[in-house]
Amino acid sequence: FSVRQTESAYRYRHLVVRKQDGFTHVVLSTRNSEYNALNPEVMRELQGVMATAACDDSRLLLLSSVGPVFCSGLDYLWFIHKLTEDRKRESARMAEAVRSFVNALVQFPKPLVAAVNGAAVGLGAAILALCDVVWANEKAWIQTPYALYGHTPDGCSSYTLPLIMGPAPAGELLLGARRLTALEACAKGLVSQVLWPQTFNQEVMSRVRDLCADAQVLKESKSLIRSWSRSGLEQTNERECEALKRIWATTEWTDTILEYLQRPPEY
Amino acid sequence: FSVRQTESAYRYRHLVVRKQDGFTHVVLSTRNSEYNALNPEVMRELQGVMATAACDDSRLLLLSSVGPVFCSGLDYLWFIHKLTEDRKRESARMAEAVRSFVNALVQFPKPLVAAVNGAAVGLGAAILALCDVVWANEKAWIQTPYALYGHTPDGCSSYTLPLIMGPAPAGELLLGARRLTALEACAKGLVSQVLWPQTFNQEVMSRVRDLCADAQVLKESKSLIRSWSRSGLEQTNERECEALKRIWATTEWTDTILEYLQRPPEY
Amino acid sequence: FSVRQTESAYRYRHLVVRKQDGFTHVVLSTRNSEYNALNPEVMRELQGVMATAACDDSRLLLLSSVGPVFCSGLDYLWFIHKLTEDRKRESARMAEAVRSFVNALVQFPKPLVAAVNGAAVGLGAAILALCDVVWANEKAWIQTPYALYGHTPDGCSSYTLPLIMGPAPAGELLLGARRLTALEACAKGLVSQVLWPQTFNQEVMSRVRDLCADAQVLKESKSLIRSWSRSGLEQTNERECEALKRIWATTEWTDTILEYLQRPPEY
Repeated sequence: FSVRQTESAYRYRHLVVRKQDGFTHVVLSTRNSEYNALNPEVMRELQGVMATAACDDSRLLLLSSVGPVFCSGLDYLWFIHKLTEDRKRESARMAEAVRSFVNALVQFPKPLVAAVNGAAVGLGAAILALCDVVWANEKAWIQTPYALYGHTPDGCSSYTLPLIMGPAPAGELLLGARRLTALEACAKGLVSQVLWPQTFNQEVMSRVRDLCADAQVLKESKSLIRSWSRSGLEQTNERECEALKRIWATTEWTDTILEYLQRPPEY
Repeated sequence: FSVRQTESAYRYRHLVVRKQDGFTHVVLSTRNSEYNALNPEVMRELQGVMATAACDDSRLLLLSSVGPVFCSGLDYLWFIHKLTEDRKRESARMAEAVRSFVNALVQFPKPLVAAVNGAAVGLGAAILALCDVVWANEKAWIQTPYALYGHTPDGCSSYTLPLIMGPAPAGELLLGARRLTALEACAKGLVSQVLWPQTFNQEVMSRVRDLCADAQVLKESKSLIRSWSRSGLEQTNERECEALKRIWATTEWTDTILEYLQRPPEY
Repeated sequence: FSVRQTESAYRYRHLVVRKQDGFTHVVLSTRNSEYNALNPEVMRELQGVMATAACDDSRLLLLSSVGPVFCSGLDYLWFIHKLTEDRKRESARMAEAVRSFVNALVQFPKPLVAAVNGAAVGLGAAILALCDVVWANEKAWIQTPYALYGHTPDGCSSYTLPLIMGPAPAGELLLGARRLTALEACAKGLVSQVLWPQTFNQEVMSRVRDLCADAQVLKESKSLIRSWSRSGLEQTNERECEALKRIWATTEWTDTILEYLQRPPEY
């Protein structure tokens, strides 16, 4: 997707947001984090776009990014610096930022469509399971390496992944660090369809147009589809963030994540 | 399946019903709707067969049809004529007919087996997710094009499809109009097994005989299998039919469905 | 896996139990039942190991066995002899043994990892769906032939299988006697990954080491992953065992299982 701002664009620091053809298109393109990592500032901007798109005449929200990384999960580099200030306070703040961001995704009243151009890792992978349609570039891959981060699952993945793919495949992802190719993620039900890299953007746009044209029907359909899982997701989010807050506040965790951050990134 | 009536056959207008080898075999073959489309009269007959088969000595109920279309969903042609009489009254009647039919499927106490010879579309596809075993002809295909109909999902598909295949693949089916081949539907968990066209009928019959022979064990197994999902399905059915009643009563919907009906059928 | 006892081994009659590298490894190797069949004595020993591993410093529990059969399900040969003593009392005892064993699996607070070297049948297959990671030898196969046993599902399979693979594929397994190869079971979400026979044991060991290293994080992750399904599993287990107790106490069932036992075993 071109990130050139059009007149209809709202201006954000970490996002390019366009309204076009009756839907809101958000391109994640973080300025102060590498690989589209999510820190509270980025998550707050995303929540801002969602709050706007929920109320305006957008039929749906399309989330995408540019380059080899869709979203690399939480911004541990930022977080580790913050933790040196006040471990307990900053753990609570980060957990609250995640809680609020994930709840916004869970409660978003219109279809969420993700166009996954590249690697989706950690929270960046978990949020795909909260989307209503997910198209992935054949080069994309998915990983939830909480084992390497030394913490428990986030983004409701402890609830969504076992439900979507079964507990045994999900367990290997959540407790180990197995990577799934886009095609594997599609076979396991995380991805709607895998598209060719060469024509990915055009294919996504043409498919978004093929989705139901009526904004009211889309909204009611989404409401029906999510009604049975919503409270389970909200409860899971609360529990997951409580666990994260506790783990993040320990000195042991700082050691684990420092070790993780010393690895060369794999993107 | 041969539709020749045997002595043991009950006579219905839109169905051929046979008791054989300890099970009830229903062949859908509608007289006043094309492509086995479901109108209240057809649905009432199906409920009648289910009510009988629930109480007699049938071990299970096998649902099939003949030709290239298993079931094309709701009979919009019939419905659109009815709506011209009294939009509000007829929307409520159709929604009530669907509600009652889908509840009958959800509450049927014995195994429901579907032999899907051809296209299963809309409600005709949604009911497959309420069956306990689904064998599909390799030529069959499945589609829930609610986007084209301009209305929200029916037949509990807003609950069953995300649960069976994951929200992202289900979203593409429920909000878009993607078609699945029989093999794709099998890979996604909607179909038990895909069988060769040449020997489809014989294979189905031989496999029905391989299912558990004891009527009481089959009934108790079904009850165990469905006990956890039953109330979720019933609630979904209520919600879905409420939404349909509201949408169908609008003049906008009449325009949408008239446009849809002008397309050449794809069977 | 070598079944040679190491110094750290606890001694059991039907199990070889080793603590190694921070986890408990149980090798099922029954003495008074063929094909690792489960009778109350074997199940009691397994519960004993789980009770110990839940409280000691094990990060997780690895369950495996040796040879062409992982676990052939309930020990019907033992059971049929018992039933001749007092049909009603022994049915109640066996149902209580199953109930207690399955609950122990459901409630085990640390990750359960299964290394499925060979055939997993009946309850031996059902327990895989209660595990958090399942690696299968390519030669392994899975079957829940309750239709042949003439009884209803056990091991929570009436709940887990429809949820994992969809009701139609699960129905064919639970009401029929279809076998799944390891690769099919993996495609349907019962198995995390299929590994080569030649290097199965080494691969399992290396993958166990790759799972999250932190015992506390593993335990909290497991708790998050299982929190939403636990009460559903417990209720299912109660209901399933009630049904089994009733069916087992009938003379008809004795006839069915005697007929089953006269078949040559297929391992």
